[in-house]
Formats: sequence, structure tokens, C-alpha cells
Amino acid sequence: MQNFTYVNPTKIHFGEGAILKLGEELKALCVERALLVYGKASIFANGVHDAVMQQMATAGVEVVEHGGVQGNPVLSHTRAGIEKARHHEVDAICAVGGGSVIDEAKAICAGVNTNVDVWDLFTMKASPGEVLPLLAVCTLPATGSEMNGICVVTNEETKEKIAMVKPGALNPKVSFLDPEVTKTLTAEQTAFACTDILSHIMEAYFTTSAKRLPLQDNLLEGVAKATVEAMDLIMAHPDDYDARAAFMWAATMAWSGIAQAGIPGPSMPCHALEMPLSAVYDIAHGAGLSVVIPAWIRHSAKGHLSRIAAFAKAVFKVDACDAASIASALRVYYRRIGSPVTFVEAGIAHPDMDRLVQLASASLAQRGMTDYTPKVVRAIYNECME
Amino acid sequence: MQNFTYVNPTKIHFGEGAILKLGEELKALCVERALLVYGKASIFANGVHDAVMQQMATAGVEVVEHGGVQGNPVLSHTRAGIEKARHHEVDAICAVGGGSVIDEAKAICAGVNTNVDVWDLFTMKASPGEVLPLLAVCTLPATGSEMNGICVVTNEETKEKIAMVKPGALNPKVSFLDPEVTKTLTAEQTAFACTDILSHIMEAYFTTSAKRLPLQDNLLEGVAKATVEAMDLIMAHPDDYDARAAFMWAATMAWSGIAQAGIPGPSMPCHALEMPLSAVYDIAHGAGLSVVIPAWIRHSAKGHLSRIAAFAKAVFKVDACDAASIASALRVYYRRIGSPVTFVEAGIAHPDMDRLVQLASASLAQRGMTDYTPKVVRAIYNECME
Repeated sequence: MQNFTYVNPTKIHFGEGAILKLGEELKALCVERALLVYGKASIFANGVHDAVMQQMATAGVEVVEHGGVQGNPVLSHTRAGIEKARHHEVDAICAVGGGSVIDEAKAICAGVNTNVDVWDLFTMKASPGEVLPLLAVCTLPATGSEMNGICVVTNEETKEKIAMVKPGALNPKVSFLDPEVTKTLTAEQTAFACTDILSHIMEAYFTTSAKRLPLQDNLLEGVAKATVEAMDLIMAHPDDYDARAAFMWAATMAWSGIAQAGIPGPSMPCHALEMPLSAVYDIAHGAGLSVVIPAWIRHSAKGHLSRIAAFAKAVFKVDACDAASIASALRVYYRRIGSPVTFVEAGIAHPDMDRLVQLASASLAQRGMTDYTPKVVRAIYNECME
Repeated sequence: MQNFTYVNPTKIHFGEGAILKLGEELKALCVERALLVYGKASIFANGVHDAVMQQMATAGVEVVEHGGVQGNPVLSHTRAGIEKARHHEVDAICAVGGGSVIDEAKAICAGVNTNVDVWDLFTMKASPGEVLPLLAVCTLPATGSEMNGICVVTNEETKEKIAMVKPGALNPKVSFLDPEVTKTLTAEQTAFACTDILSHIMEAYFTTSAKRLPLQDNLLEGVAKATVEAMDLIMAHPDDYDARAAFMWAATMAWSGIAQAGIPGPSMPCHALEMPLSAVYDIAHGAGLSVVIPAWIRHSAKGHLSRIAAFAKAVFKVDACDAASIASALRVYYRRIGSPVTFVEAGIAHPDMDRLVQLASASLAQRGMTDYTPKVVRAIYNECME
């Protein structure tokens, strides 16, 4: 087992009615004025905006609204949020939405009390100073952002999509997870969420060492199997509360870091390969992942194969140990839940290969994955064509 | 899934050399004077006391020693620690040892800044005020105390053994877990630790509802299976670092609360049944558990049986669904690892049944487990006779 440091101070309120604890948590943090960060129409349609505003009123908190966060949150909107937070001198941020909303809110929290541009925090030219407290009402379980210290923002000028990783400092103080709310998600949103959850587990599991780590393997397989089982139930009965609850908590467990502790850092490049797709073509992150993961397995499984085969067997009951068969089985699964597996299926009819290769290679170099030369990256993207 | 609130802010430094991070953590917490809480000879024999003192010196921390914590920590020694901490005006406590040492240290942390007797915090006549920061160097993985907000102390006058439960407030700020140190544990210590770890999982798993909770079941089974696998390896090769590491992290996972979140509170009374044994006869907690758990299964499995059978199958590969067979298989396992399964094997030749029944019944009533009348408790203890 690898040495590690683990810290995850986020407090979780989970279950039906969890949002009703927002008021008391705002009071406990002595919040007087909060920036309310959210996306588009969904939280108005499902009643969550109303519920949050009632909690704000109960706690006597003045609200400054910052709506319109995009599916892949962008730098300009983050900067605007920081300006608003400074102008109104808010003492906390409240994020209401999925991973994109929580990610942008984290970047705002980190950017308010610093005299550098927030992008410098992503490019690691500067470090965040005092981070504003964040309360997160999670309405779309997928990224795990509700219980980790990671956020991803896209610089829409350069199309760079970069993660800022600060376990502890960037974590929400409190997150509120009500599975009831997730019943209103579309089948597509749930499918892309499923792809994202499984990808977080695969990134940890697909190490280059063939050695089992029994505890971590059991935890990762356990979360993955529960995700797949819940997804099947949700597809049959989207209103199944227990399945929605298992799916939601599995999403949090998959990327809270607890199941990954003791495993070497990821050696699978799929998040880096996906990021250019969602940054350039604004497709859902989960959709991009179900395109690149089987492609990566087809082209680059060598060295990871025993781990990939072990995972496919444990989670998908696929009894094969050649990359092509496993990739093919995974594609069948992704298609079955409604997530695309080729560029065309993802709506990218004419991919700008040169640009994608350049962006992915830069991102991979930043992560120290130097084996993934532009030539290798191009070959993997070619596997996404059909 | 049950609604829940989860919080666990403890930072973990895990791996060989983890203790070398103590100095920087003391500095980060601005500690100038610390109470060093420990047990008996073991930390002098295995070099941990020296390593801790070096870290204290590096961080410029003045040390006040409070050694001699017993295997089942007692109230008088806890009170003495509180007096010492007050007298020397320490600004942190550093616990070095197993669960007993960390538990007593937690009680001292909670008791220093209050004007009531510390026992009133256990009996819930009063609440802790400001809790001193605790840093815990864990040398015996078993209780999970290094990463939870629970501590257990025995009032040696009344023989009451009570848990104080304050998730978040009572958690160590930072814990240091070096599996290398655990190679010096005796076979007996490791066996009792194994029993304790498995009992924490069983208490959560053996619900009265037959319904599976796929995610939680996978996590609990995963931790239990990894514990059993690691224990086998340790028995064959006590110096196996990877097995010691898996065992140590499994102990923490088993009672950090993360695998229990979403499950109804324990309906299995085995901790309450064990506590009088260790309180009155000062046997190891784990030894008492391996006596009472099979006895409880033999007498009171009804209503829990489908869960007990599922666990026995998943973890011990026991394919039976009657209580007697499962209890018998569990006894075989406990005996094999070297943990006792009857009063006599545990060194209690002539149990004072009246006293044990009275203490256990009081503890069970306090937990609201009113089905366990004195008559039922006596019947379970009778099952421990042979």
C-alpha cells in the first residue's frame, strides 16, 4: 500500500428533506450575506430554488444571485462571480446544482480573497489565500464535487480545462444531498452521471501494477457494483427512491478520496483525453468519457490489462482478458444506459483532430503522463471514430 | 436508505514514517505545550516514544507526560490527566498508543475546559465545552478511535463502562498510522484487534431488516473480507508490511462511520454485553467480544438471521442459515485466530452472573434496547459458559 495523507472535512446531510438543514448550518457559520450560485432553469422547475430561498430567509441571510453557470463552467462567468462576491462583501457561497455549479462556486470561494486572477490558481502560478466557506446543495450526483477539494473550470479563450486540487481547503463546509430531487433528472443526465461515477473508480483501479490491494479493491468494486445495480433499477423505475439514494451516495463515495487512499495516483489518462471534447464541443463530461474510455482500452490497455480484466469481471461479469473484448463489452454497457461511444454518437461529426490532440497532449504533459505523446493521443482519438 | 448526517474531519497520515509528520502538524496547530498520553512499556520498547519526543523537540513543544493508561481506561486516571492538563495549561493532547489511550485522551480533551466532572459528560448530564485539539499516534489498530468521535471510559467504582459519542467534536485533529510499528504487536493483541474490527462491521450489518442496502453492504463486506484476508497473512508472516497496512486501514474504515452511513443504528447488543466483562474482569475488549457474539447468535439471532447468514456467507464462506451452525463456524474462526469463545477460555472461571446481568441490562436500557430484559441477558451469558 502506498503512503498517503487523507482529509475530508465536509459535513454531509443526506436524505429526503436534507435541504431543510441549510438554515441552521448558515446560522452556525454566522452567515449574513451569501452568493447563490446556480445553473439554469432546473432548480426553478423542481422547487429547489424556492426551498433554498426559504432557508435563507429563515436564517436571515441576504442573497445575491449568480445564476447561469454552464454545464462546463467557464472562466469569464467565474470571474464575474468573484466580482459580485467582492462587491456585495458576501461571507459565504451557496452552490445549488450539479458538479459544474459546485466547481464554479469553489473557484469563486478561492478567488475572492486573493489579488491575482483566479486562473493563476488553476495554472498554479499562485495559491489561494483565505477560502470563503461553501455550502453545496447537490442536485445532480456525478462528479463527487460535493465532498472533495477539486474543481474544474474551462478557460473559454484558450479552451484549456484545468482542475484545481486542494483537499481540505476547497471542500464544501457542508453539503446537502436529497435523493428525492434527483428523480427529476432526465435519463440522459443520469446516464452521463453513471459514466462519470464509474470513470472515477476506473481511474483509481486501472493501475499499472497487477498487484491486488484487497481493501481498496473491495471498496472500489463495491461502489462500482452498487452504481451499476442502482442504474439498472433507475432505468426501470426512475422514481425508485432507494435506487436514487444508492446512486447519489455512490457518486459521492466514488470521488471523495476514501476508496482511493493508498493507491498510486491515476495512470489512466481518460479525464485528460475527455477534457478537450467537453471544452471544445461543450458535450457532457460523462458523454465524452464513454467515448474515450473504450477507445483508450482498445489502444493502450497494455500494462493495465490484468487490472482492467479484474474490474470487468467483478463489476460487469465480463470474463475476458483481451482488450478488444473488454472494450467492446464496455461499449455495449454504455450504449445500453444511453451514453455515446463514438464521436458521431456524441454529436461531434467532424472532430478537429489537430486541436484535440494539441489540447490533450498539453494536459497530459501537465499531469506528467509523458508516455502519451501526440502520436499516441491521435491514435486513441482515431479509435473514437467508429 | 436511512437519512443521515456524516462528518469526519480527522486528517490521516498513513504509511511508513507517518510519525515524522507529527512535528509539522504540531506547528500548524500552534502548539507550545502538550500532554503526552500513553500506556505502559510498549512505546518505549518499539521506539515510538523516542520518535514522538524527537518530533516534539523539532516543533519546540514542551511535553508533560501522562503515562500508565490501562487497557480499559479508567475514570480516576482520566481525571488525573485533566488535572495535569489544567495545571500545566497545555494547548493540545498527544495520544500515543491503541484505542484505550486515544479514548482516554479524548475524554481529557473534552474535560479540560468544563466546570463539571468529566463523568457527567459520559452520563450526558453535561456537554463538553471547547475541546482541546488531539493528535493521535495509533500503534494498535482495532477500535477505530483514531478516526472517529467516540471514546469509552470505565468508572472503576461503579464498574460502568460508557461511551461518549460526539462525531466531529471529539475526533482527533490529525492521526498518524504507521503499519511498520504494528509488526511488534503480539499474536494475541492482533487476534483481539481482529475480533474488535469484525464486531464493528457486524454491529452495522446485523440489522433487523432483511433488506439489502447494496452500497453499504458492499462496503462493509469489503472491509470485513480484507480484514480476514490480512489476518491470515499476518498469522503466517507477522512481518508482512502490506498485510499489516491493510489490517490497520481496515480497522480505521470499520468504525470511521463511512461504511455505516445510511444504515439504521445498531440493533445488535454485543458491545453492551461485552462491556461488563472487560469492566469487571479487565479482559481485552476483543476477547470479550469473541465470547459474547456467538452466544448472542445462538440465543437471539431470530429477526436478524437473514443478515447474519448473508454476512457469514460473504465473509467466511459459511453456507448455512441456522443460528447454531453459523455461531459454531464463527467460534471455529475465533479459536483459529486465538481469541476465546467461552468465559473460561477468556479467563473468567467463575462469572458473577448477577452483577454482569445488572450492568449489561443498565447499559442496554440506556441504549434503548429494551427487548434485552435481564432474563434475556442472563440466557445469553449462559450460552458463554460452554
